[in-house]
Amino acid sequence: MPQTADVVVIGGGVIGAAIAWRLAVGGASVVVADPAPGSGATGTAAGMLAPVTELHYGEEPLLRLNLAAARRYPGFVAELTEASGVSVGYRRTGTLAAAWDGADLAALRDLHEFQRSLGLNGQMLSGADLRGLEPSLAPGLPGGLYAGDDHAVDPRRLHAALVTAAERAGARLERQRVQRVEVDEHARGVVLDDGTKLIGACVVLAAGSWSGSTAGLPAGIVPPVRPVKGQTLRLRLDTSERLTHVTRGTVRGSPVYLVPREDGELVVGASAEEAGFDLRARSGAIYELLRDAQALLPAVLEMEWVEVSTGLRPGTPDNAPIIGSADVDGLVIATGHFRNGILLAPVTADAVQQIVLTGSTPEDVRAFAPQRFAGLVRPT
Amino acid sequence: MPQTADVVVIGGGVIGAAIAWRLAVGGASVVVADPAPGSGATGTAAGMLAPVTELHYGEEPLLRLNLAAARRYPGFVAELTEASGVSVGYRRTGTLAAAWDGADLAALRDLHEFQRSLGLNGQMLSGADLRGLEPSLAPGLPGGLYAGDDHAVDPRRLHAALVTAAERAGARLERQRVQRVEVDEHARGVVLDDGTKLIGACVVLAAGSWSGSTAGLPAGIVPPVRPVKGQTLRLRLDTSERLTHVTRGTVRGSPVYLVPREDGELVVGASAEEAGFDLRARSGAIYELLRDAQALLPAVLEMEWVEVSTGLRPGTPDNAPIIGSADVDGLVIATGHFRNGILLAPVTADAVQQIVLTGSTPEDVRAFAPQRFAGLVRPT
Repeated sequence: MPQTADVVVIGGGVIGAAIAWRLAVGGASVVVADPAPGSGATGTAAGMLAPVTELHYGEEPLLRLNLAAARRYPGFVAELTEASGVSVGYRRTGTLAAAWDGADLAALRDLHEFQRSLGLNGQMLSGADLRGLEPSLAPGLPGGLYAGDDHAVDPRRLHAALVTAAERAGARLERQRVQRVEVDEHARGVVLDDGTKLIGACVVLAAGSWSGSTAGLPAGIVPPVRPVKGQTLRLRLDTSERLTHVTRGTVRGSPVYLVPREDGELVVGASAEEAGFDLRARSGAIYELLRDAQALLPAVLEMEWVEVSTGLRPGTPDNAPIIGSADVDGLVIATGHFRNGILLAPVTADAVQQIVLTGSTPEDVRAFAPQRFAGLVRPT
Repeated sequence: MPQTADVVVIGGGVIGAAIAWRLAVGGASVVVADPAPGSGATGTAAGMLAPVTELHYGEEPLLRLNLAAARRYPGFVAELTEASGVSVGYRRTGTLAAAWDGADLAALRDLHEFQRSLGLNGQMLSGADLRGLEPSLAPGLPGGLYAGDDHAVDPRRLHAALVTAAERAGARLERQRVQRVEVDEHARGVVLDDGTKLIGACVVLAAGSWSGSTAGLPAGIVPPVRPVKGQTLRLRLDTSERLTHVTRGTVRGSPVYLVPREDGELVVGASAEEAGFDLRARSGAIYELLRDAQALLPAVLEMEWVEVSTGLRPGTPDNAPIIGSADVDGLVIATGHFRNGILLAPVTADAVQQIVLTGSTPEDVRAFAPQRFAGLVRPT
């Protein structure tokens, strides 16, 4: 017996759930299909909202989107908390990028200059400044960069809030894998693993790393996403030596970040490996994260071990997301968020809401249309 | 409604389960009380059976017991496997003690001399010998000591086999905590957490680290055990670079051992901390185990992370177990096995069987009677 909705969303991670919420609020009937919503990259992400300290040279178009996303966050969080009754752990802590040595400090100075040239908010710190802000950091760090606008959210709570808000607004969750998308000249819906058909006037593909392997998509439409494995650790400290800022560093060339939660949890991230769809935790990633984290924050070694989690970031050829209408009527793509999925969920959801409900694509995501990869030969 | 048995065993770890099996085979009716059998030190232990490489100067009486226990193992395993139908992962691999540097090699030479003076089987190895035996060890290790009689067993499978064999022989398991022991001039049994009385002609206290905190014992009878926290890691490697021998070393002063299982699992152990009854995994222990394990075996960093587990070794003032009749009729103590519980389970069970069924204490455990700690002032 087929079921019918205005929109079928493939994927119920933070991107799919945010889209479902915004569409349901906008009046659409929505079904989200996901066998384990939030268990992918969403559940592993540390939740940094860091357009400034995540800045990579040569990614200015993405930077503009990231900055817009960061500005959108407080309003989004307020509205979501109101709609769901769930606190999402949004903390306006600011972020410290601590230098490991003199060369690293010089690199942070260059980054700071680049940031200033783009009009971004940042401030160089001496070693004494750094210890003043975070007394439990390792002694001897030569200084750092303070980014007052880079904050953090708890992705697991964010996801729980989005699912609750979406369901309260009338969206429905189907806890099944999508077997295939049904497309002729128009997207028609999906078939679930148990054979159920979900017929939708519109299909939104928001399956993260699995977006490229969804069956039924015409060859030219398959988004070029690849899984980039990431591991994060969750530790816990119940005493007073807690960080109050998101803190990151590059210890002997190896990047690490520490995201403190209000309840004493500390998330340490993140490894990055091209290992296909392998979700097994690797001992070496755990070792390197602990090694680098304790170099910045010695108290890490006294913390309780809570868990390691592994997720797959959906990477794209230019590290930017893929957001927009595909060249098939009724098919919208929202994937490839790579390192920025938590930050970009609100602007992505707003954009997809507008695309689906009005047919027009908002200005701020036009640079990220699927068509920019047209003609790309996909690896087989 | 009280229940009655010939023997009530408090604690269903590897010691309590082995005792229950031997007593049931000997014709006694047996009840074992444990809320989570095998979840203590048994479930964390790596399973080295290492009287030679675990040798500590000044512990010769314990060494004699350990050697007797190692000799008893093959027969014990054969009988247990036959009785239970469960394979216990007993591997006669021999053990390599790899030297980290020249000073460490000199220390192994001294240990080798000491071993020879005691008539023990050991053999010094060059660096080339070491790599010949284990090609995946780190290059540059200067040599080591081969102990051909030190083997390993899988403690979790051993425990499963013991429980099965004990139950097949008629023993019964009560999955509850013991609230208190009932003792007047004679041990009378125990009261479980739900109030059930188990009346026994004999009570065997085999509760590992919790043996000292069992309520109802007269003050002079409480065994002086303290918990010594240990953490082990379970990793997995599915390729060819597997160890074939138990391998241990002391990396910059920090001891580590690697116990390979047939199925590709590798157990890395073990931390040692005096932290009371705190069972939380500590990040620093994980970090140090991975750091030292990868120094000996670089492939550790490529292995799958399976789990960390934490157990409490029951330590005693002289590091030796407490086995024998207490100064209360009908009360037998079998605890305090510290680092040697897996190795000593068979001889402990045989001894307790003889004590309970015949009243006589076998020669080989007389040095480990509870009375040796008489007059000891217990910490409060």
